[in-house]
Amino acid sequence: MALALSTTLRTSFGDAVDRTRKALAEQGFGVLTEIDMKATLKEKLGEELDDYVILGACNPPLAHRAVTIDPQIGLLLPCNVVVRADPADTHMVLIEAMNPQMMVQVADHPGLAEVADDATAALQEAIDSLTIGASKN
Amino acid sequence: MALALSTTLRTSFGDAVDRTRKALAEQGFGVLTEIDMKATLKEKLGEELDDYVILGACNPPLAHRAVTIDPQIGLLLPCNVVVRADPADTHMVLIEAMNPQMMVQVADHPGLAEVADDATAALQEAIDSLTIGASKN
Repeated sequence: MALALSTTLRTSFGDAVDRTRKALAEQGFGVLTEIDMKATLKEKLGEELDDYVILGACNPPLAHRAVTIDPQIGLLLPCNVVVRADPADTHMVLIEAMNPQMMVQVADHPGLAEVADDATAALQEAIDSLTIGASKN
Repeated sequence: MALALSTTLRTSFGDAVDRTRKALAEQGFGVLTEIDMKATLKEKLGEELDDYVILGACNPPLAHRAVTIDPQIGLLLPCNVVVRADPADTHMVLIEAMNPQMMVQVADHPGLAEVADDATAALQEAIDSLTIGASKN
């Protein structure tokens, strides 16, 4: 199982974050949290990291279904979407969404499979829309 | 592998959240995010849920080690700690921290094992301190 549903954009980091938020919103995912890892590690440790943001994306109907089936599933919510500088190319930005199939793999709750499939489809749609949008530019 | 490192406290929900934050801080975990799932699902869907908070806990040195070894690991950061009403007993509150061994299981990156062990030890210490603190009351 792939850990991430991912794509790569040739754009600035800020623009990649903005486009990712928009693509997620179009699939019903609100961004509940945003962690700037670069700023956090610089502030706490003085360490340098390339641009690196973790968005916590939540589709409320899907989250409600998941938590109703398995109340422990909050351990894997919201769904993280990492936006980070591509270490191989400074003009590229990686966007990686946590593969919701991981919920099924680690939680081992058969009822979660259908929710995970729906979440995977919605996140894949968001990732694909970023890729298609990028190829039009 | 257990999905969570967990304990149960006989106290109010608010007190359980406060104690959890304190126990995490004592092990070097700052709470970077807090999601009130009950309020979120009520606001977005009108659905009722028992008290349910997801804390996003981050120990900066451990996070830095993890992200240096495997830049994709942000998909599993910060470490979620769920505080939720015990459905079986209204006087009890469940505290469940994501088992960091999951990082090793799903990311399949051998270098992560040592960081995961250290994170597990620190979180287990936090959970144990809650349990010991509770038994003294």
